[in-house]
Amino acid sequence: MSGASEFGRAYDLMRAASGDTWRDYTRHDFVEGMKDGSLPRDCFLHYLRQDYVYLVHYSRAWALAVVKAATQEEMGAASATVDALVNHEMSLHIGICAAEGISTKELFDTPEAPENLAYTRYVMDAGFSGDYLNLLSALVPCAMGYAEIGTRLAAEATSDTYAEWINAYAGEDYQESCRVIGRLFDAAFEARLGKDYDKLPIWKTYCATFEKASRLEACFWQMGMEP
Amino acid sequence: MSGASEFGRAYDLMRAASGDTWRDYTRHDFVEGMKDGSLPRDCFLHYLRQDYVYLVHYSRAWALAVVKAATQEEMGAASATVDALVNHEMSLHIGICAAEGISTKELFDTPEAPENLAYTRYVMDAGFSGDYLNLLSALVPCAMGYAEIGTRLAAEATSDTYAEWINAYAGEDYQESCRVIGRLFDAAFEARLGKDYDKLPIWKTYCATFEKASRLEACFWQMGMEP
Amino acid sequence: MSGASEFGRAYDLMRAASGDTWRDYTRHDFVEGMKDGSLPRDCFLHYLRQDYVYLVHYSRAWALAVVKAATQEEMGAASATVDALVNHEMSLHIGICAAEGISTKELFDTPEAPENLAYTRYVMDAGFSGDYLNLLSALVPCAMGYAEIGTRLAAEATSDTYAEWINAYAGEDYQESCRVIGRLFDAAFEARLGKDYDKLPIWKTYCATFEKASRLEACFWQMGMEP
Amino acid sequence: MSGASEFGRAYDLMRAASGDTWRDYTRHDFVEGMKDGSLPRDCFLHYLRQDYVYLVHYSRAWALAVVKAATQEEMGAASATVDALVNHEMSLHIGICAAEGISTKELFDTPEAPENLAYTRYVMDAGFSGDYLNLLSALVPCAMGYAEIGTRLAAEATSDTYAEWINAYAGEDYQESCRVIGRLFDAAFEARLGKDYDKLPIWKTYCATFEKASRLEACFWQMGMEP
Repeated sequence: MSGASEFGRAYDLMRAASGDTWRDYTRHDFVEGMKDGSLPRDCFLHYLRQDYVYLVHYSRAWALAVVKAATQEEMGAASATVDALVNHEMSLHIGICAAEGISTKELFDTPEAPENLAYTRYVMDAGFSGDYLNLLSALVPCAMGYAEIGTRLAAEATSDTYAEWINAYAGEDYQESCRVIGRLFDAAFEARLGKDYDKLPIWKTYCATFEKASRLEACFWQMGMEP
Repeated sequence: MSGASEFGRAYDLMRAASGDTWRDYTRHDFVEGMKDGSLPRDCFLHYLRQDYVYLVHYSRAWALAVVKAATQEEMGAASATVDALVNHEMSLHIGICAAEGISTKELFDTPEAPENLAYTRYVMDAGFSGDYLNLLSALVPCAMGYAEIGTRLAAEATSDTYAEWINAYAGEDYQESCRVIGRLFDAAFEARLGKDYDKLPIWKTYCATFEKASRLEACFWQMGMEP
Repeated sequence: MSGASEFGRAYDLMRAASGDTWRDYTRHDFVEGMKDGSLPRDCFLHYLRQDYVYLVHYSRAWALAVVKAATQEEMGAASATVDALVNHEMSLHIGICAAEGISTKELFDTPEAPENLAYTRYVMDAGFSGDYLNLLSALVPCAMGYAEIGTRLAAEATSDTYAEWINAYAGEDYQESCRVIGRLFDAAFEARLGKDYDKLPIWKTYCATFEKASRLEACFWQMGMEP
Repeated sequence: MSGASEFGRAYDLMRAASGDTWRDYTRHDFVEGMKDGSLPRDCFLHYLRQDYVYLVHYSRAWALAVVKAATQEEMGAASATVDALVNHEMSLHIGICAAEGISTKELFDTPEAPENLAYTRYVMDAGFSGDYLNLLSALVPCAMGYAEIGTRLAAEATSDTYAEWINAYAGEDYQESCRVIGRLFDAAFEARLGKDYDKLPIWKTYCATFEKASRLEACFWQMGMEP
């Protein structure tokens, strides 16, 4: 795997295969607006509420990965992710929102925007209808994309308006969790499909799932722009 | 159940509880455009392609109802619906599209619009994550709404441009299939939750599922307007 | 695929890989007792009641295959199988049981033997937790094994006590349905994993699922011997 | 809820409704053999290996409860249970087995006994096919039954051969986790079906699930007696 990025070979290949979609997601106007601080506060808060509801379903999807895991290692990694999401990452949202006078119950009951619903339910169905690899292919764009955005914005930001958000995803804890997921992702492909997994017809299906999830990420940012 | 419409009491109650959402769905501009023939052909064809992909997932959802059924009658009714959808209703689309030069394979591979994805995956997840009643609550708005629209348009249409579509849903075969579903729906609630099922806290959850699916139907028509 | 049996290459390979387990299943004492008519009637009726409940879950599992299908062909074949099971194969059991004074409701409510429960729920979980290929790998031993047993017993039977059962599975309708499943099975592997699907690590997982389901078939016959 | 035991009202009602089945489970010969130390070591080790594999699926089932949860509280409690199982309870088994020279990998790969398979897959299917309440009804007999057995054996044991096992389940940590589950169970019923949930037709379905899981627990002990 020499030459693979720190998030692994399977991810690198899928990211490359998704072409402009990846760029549309990770360099969306919403992201650029966090970089230079021009993103209106109400857009950010709208996004944050929806992202909280997103995290509820994202956690459910990782719980489904526990259900579909094939080894003790896969179960352990997915369990730890569920725990980190439910008991830690959500608290970033709860904290920022609380400071704005939005309660936890209000957050949990936020009416879902159609873009949110489309994304989260697509991921759930990718898991229910497909296998563990298909579920992970739908989960990885969120995990890794935020890591990339966090790192880039930490380096390029010209405003500290959104520093709390940026630092959360640029931070070593989050970055390391993505490296773990990257290794899990590579190992899951190799253990099931061998070293040449990307030569099999089904690889295109997994890439399509990754690409669709990435496209739904871009739609999610767009939703944030329209509170 | 005296006073209930031909589609049953549970449906009547949910329809009433969904308020304006039901009206927004069943009297959408797209529908009114089929009534007077003003709907542009490319909007209709865009809708038809997406609706074909929709039917793929709608059939999958009815197959999931077979998985979740509790009696021989529930299994039989859901199986018959799957068969009718896969082997009959889809052919309406295939036929109209073939006449326009669109092949079956092209139809099956139509890239899904986000509105389509949001709706179909919401229904699947309502079934996977909930129970049989929750799944049916997500399926009924499509079935019954089309029956209502078909009947109304058959009476009110001032153009025969969309007569084939209108007659398919106004026709006795389709109407009878909805009466069967209506009886199935009522019986499923009573068998599990008793006669006063609409007094239980969980009734609100089922109504919310029905309302959300109806809202996603309106979004689907809107997508049709924007080919 | 030259050299493959009429039920296809994937099946042939899995059957060969399951070794003695396949023999224990298809040449179980219960089967031999149907061949020479020595099987006590109460054993057969005990089996038949349990097999009816088995068919309920077997039908649910084929409905899950509709949910997990990737093409129109896969959906159509699985839908047709569900319909054949719910509306036709079950009637063989209902007919024989009715002649013995056992009602349809009594059949549906038969308390499940642990061996029945183990087998049916294993198949369901193979589908829910795995993918379409894993689900089919759990379903094929029942379909094909009965076809083999039916053909052999039609040729070797020395008694006509169980001729109705034997003829149902030796009959051209049932045999043809298994040839269809065999082609579906081969095509599903090739479309996803390529021609050399049996060289991939995951092939062992699918073979293990097939072998486990075959072992549970043998346990099911054994249960029939102990009414 | 005055008069309810420390594990809650829903549990008390289901336990009472399951009649002799509960007694057969919690006072099985295997249990009595741990009490007086007469249980052969190889029976205990056979049980322990199978119980490890059981825990893999029991953890998967609790992960499915995260997927099916309806509130932040339900998600949090189920996530914590998954984490406790995967990262703590399993280590009791790993520790005892390691002392006997059985490795973790060997444990994970233990061939499942049919009784194990029947029980675990029944629980998974109760969750996949039913709702959150049905899933919990299948999970509670294991959790609460072990708590009862642990407490009784801690008081009545006449040998310390199995003291490590007894103390683990009699211990305050385990007992408290069951009180939490009991409150979760009661709250889940009331939030969905109201205070009189036990008067609804579906209550019988949930009781049947509880009773079936309890019966499968007794079968599991019996399997332990036959290494």
